[in-house]
Amino acid sequence: MQRYFVAKEQMTKHEVVITGEDVKHISRVMRMNINDEIICSNNESRTVKCVITRLADQEIVAKIVQEITPNTELPIEVTIAQGLPKGDKLDLIIQKGTELGASAFIPFSASRSIVKWDRKKAGKKIERLEKIAKEAAEQSYRERIPVVHQVLALPKLLKEMATFDRVIIAYEESAKEGEHAQLARVLNELSPGQKLLCIIGPEGGLSEEEVNQLKQAGAIPCGFGPRILRTETAALYALAVSSYHFELMR
Amino acid sequence: MQRYFVAKEQMTKHEVVITGEDVKHISRVMRMNINDEIICSNNESRTVKCVITRLADQEIVAKIVQEITPNTELPIEVTIAQGLPKGDKLDLIIQKGTELGASAFIPFSASRSIVKWDRKKAGKKIERLEKIAKEAAEQSYRERIPVVHQVLALPKLLKEMATFDRVIIAYEESAKEGEHAQLARVLNELSPGQKLLCIIGPEGGLSEEEVNQLKQAGAIPCGFGPRILRTETAALYALAVSSYHFELMR
Repeated sequence: MQRYFVAKEQMTKHEVVITGEDVKHISRVMRMNINDEIICSNNESRTVKCVITRLADQEIVAKIVQEITPNTELPIEVTIAQGLPKGDKLDLIIQKGTELGASAFIPFSASRSIVKWDRKKAGKKIERLEKIAKEAAEQSYRERIPVVHQVLALPKLLKEMATFDRVIIAYEESAKEGEHAQLARVLNELSPGQKLLCIIGPEGGLSEEEVNQLKQAGAIPCGFGPRILRTETAALYALAVSSYHFELMR
Repeated sequence: MQRYFVAKEQMTKHEVVITGEDVKHISRVMRMNINDEIICSNNESRTVKCVITRLADQEIVAKIVQEITPNTELPIEVTIAQGLPKGDKLDLIIQKGTELGASAFIPFSASRSIVKWDRKKAGKKIERLEKIAKEAAEQSYRERIPVVHQVLALPKLLKEMATFDRVIIAYEESAKEGEHAQLARVLNELSPGQKLLCIIGPEGGLSEEEVNQLKQAGAIPCGFGPRILRTETAALYALAVSSYHFELMR
């Protein structure tokens, strides 16, 4: 059944009012009609099944017929801090990362990031990424849309670290040296409800200085297996593995 | 250091002869010269460090200076049988799947595959996918290039199943029903050196009949977490999780 996220105020006790681009999606793309069923989430852990009762050009109204508990959120909150990668890789990371259960994404400008976001365009870019996250969250039956943060510089990212229970760095050198115990150890130390920050460098990796600063602030370098992963693959590895550890192994 | 795969006969006891497109890559893209070092693999578990001794238009010769044991292959052999997906998703699956350690890929035409490969173009398409696999294997420091098989129909895939130690199906309905123990159980039953086949449907999933036929032939439906993954994400999940289970957890 098709799923849509709506703002909290659009979902009342008995009905959901859908506005904006989803109206077009429901009436023109899905060609739905009165009495068709959809599922709506208010992005704050309320998910309902409802039946369309009114279709207009600007607004669709649907009557709530059932409260649902999808239980599709990862037991730990994983935030991906991604060194700005080239081209449209951030799109891929956010789309796939959302499917795999990420809570939030923090793009950051690393010393080896070739791409620089100019301030004027940043707003539009974040909007575009938020749209990708929303669509992927709907498609994968998520209860919440991951948050896409503004691009941070490293000093701000270092400050953010304090709000997490554990911070790891996907570290190529760890992979090369055969380090293979840290990631499983960190996941074993975390309990459901806790917050993990996973920091991933851009193409070319983090600089030694960046790694040292992060380590001094408490981040733990981890190998993600012995193969060298592209930057966009590392985020997906961390999330798939968190799902396996917390959702399938117990 | 840059890595290249060469045919077995191109690597003798003391030297490596590089031909074909890699010649252009070494001399024009990387702008390497006499005395520069590269790493070569013969795709049969011999990997060597060598020094370029001769650069010509058609051929580069390099002297072997060191035998290397990269040890970057997944302890179990994972083959991804992928229902033909739309667009260029197979490119992504093969690129990322190679980074994550897949042994082989078997594209198959599922009843809900919208794409049909015509025979005339299949050869070229497989060649293109093999090139993606080779480049991803070089980039990720693999010792072997995963094999990309010809597209199979389901009856042939069913026959192939006998050559594997375990066969799993990434099954959306399992995810929806909250099944979460099978994948970890299957991985626990496998030992290093054994072979796992992971069957993934195209967009829209496998039909009930296909799942029944696969189950009758011994395949085990597995949930990959409670979220609904796109077809291309399922392959990456299976591989990341196999790496975690066999490379990081022990």
